[in-house]
Amino acid sequence: MAKYPKPLSRLIDELRKLPGIGPKTAQRLAFYIIEEPVESVQSLASALTFAKENIHYCSLCYNLTDTDPCAICSDSTREQSVICVVEEARDIVALEKTRSFRGLYHVLHGAIAPLEGIGPGDLRIKELLERLQASVSEVILATDPDVEGEATAMYLARLIKPLGIKVTRIAHGMPVGGDLEYVDEVTLTKALEGRREL
Amino acid sequence: MAKYPKPLSRLIDELRKLPGIGPKTAQRLAFYIIEEPVESVQSLASALTFAKENIHYCSLCYNLTDTDPCAICSDSTREQSVICVVEEARDIVALEKTRSFRGLYHVLHGAIAPLEGIGPGDLRIKELLERLQASVSEVILATDPDVEGEATAMYLARLIKPLGIKVTRIAHGMPVGGDLEYVDEVTLTKALEGRREL
Repeated sequence: MAKYPKPLSRLIDELRKLPGIGPKTAQRLAFYIIEEPVESVQSLASALTFAKENIHYCSLCYNLTDTDPCAICSDSTREQSVICVVEEARDIVALEKTRSFRGLYHVLHGAIAPLEGIGPGDLRIKELLERLQASVSEVILATDPDVEGEATAMYLARLIKPLGIKVTRIAHGMPVGGDLEYVDEVTLTKALEGRREL
Repeated sequence: MAKYPKPLSRLIDELRKLPGIGPKTAQRLAFYIIEEPVESVQSLASALTFAKENIHYCSLCYNLTDTDPCAICSDSTREQSVICVVEEARDIVALEKTRSFRGLYHVLHGAIAPLEGIGPGDLRIKELLERLQASVSEVILATDPDVEGEATAMYLARLIKPLGIKVTRIAHGMPVGGDLEYVDEVTLTKALEGRREL
């Protein structure tokens, strides 16, 4: 092993803890950071602690926010009767980019995954059900289209349908720009099943 | 553009300034960091400022160090008569990993690149020449095997040779494990020129 001076090896170790940052990238980043002006490094360091200190969960939808309720929950121009359920806060960012949904969100913070020991009690499901007391007419289940996301959607549908609320699931099918030849058979089956008349 | 809460977008912006970190990666890292425990985030932030405050250049070889002279320069078991010249401090890490060099180093902090406006005066060349007053018998030029690195090596060779010091250049050739079919012609030419009798 090459020997770095202690402060440098500590920085490399800290950077390696980040997802997707391997030893080579951590080293490259650390060397880059060391050569930056002091102000830039302090600015990055303070952005880290400032974000951690000032970002928390919205008490209504559990999105990440610096206000409470979050900007979406407190926006009265949005449809209050439709709630879109997602696994993670970053899914909201993706959905908001489409500009095609103007209702509210609810972040579960995960999906049911028995093999990883994640049950319904570990997710924000109780909090979702509490929100459904109000005048909610539709719940859109936008959990990921994988095993865990499907299981979670099925579980939620069984809980919410008896309340007389419409429950919908986002469509599965071919991604736009995708190639029929290379798409997996499950997706292609779903795309056929979900076909629409033109 | 998706709207993030201010502290989060500030963190994403700061992370994007790092080399090789695009908008998607910056977003992924920021969301990950936000969900980490406070202690982990503080630990990363303090590692950043601590490294910046405590790492500086060795006054002899201009390697990154937390002591002065650096661990290599102050290691009396190393050959004091051979100096290996490199472009960047990280090149020393790569060379030290080989365990095949036991002399001293000198970091230029760049290479001559007229198109980018980097001339000899911008590199630690004056400081290298000052070190050559002592009993140095060989200078190994280990700048990168690209246009700038070659130009820098040629420039240094012309300066140092008249001092009666042996000047060598690291070998060019096929990388170990490389495929003759796919190697570029310049490398292959160098590999032929540098052939050795077995």
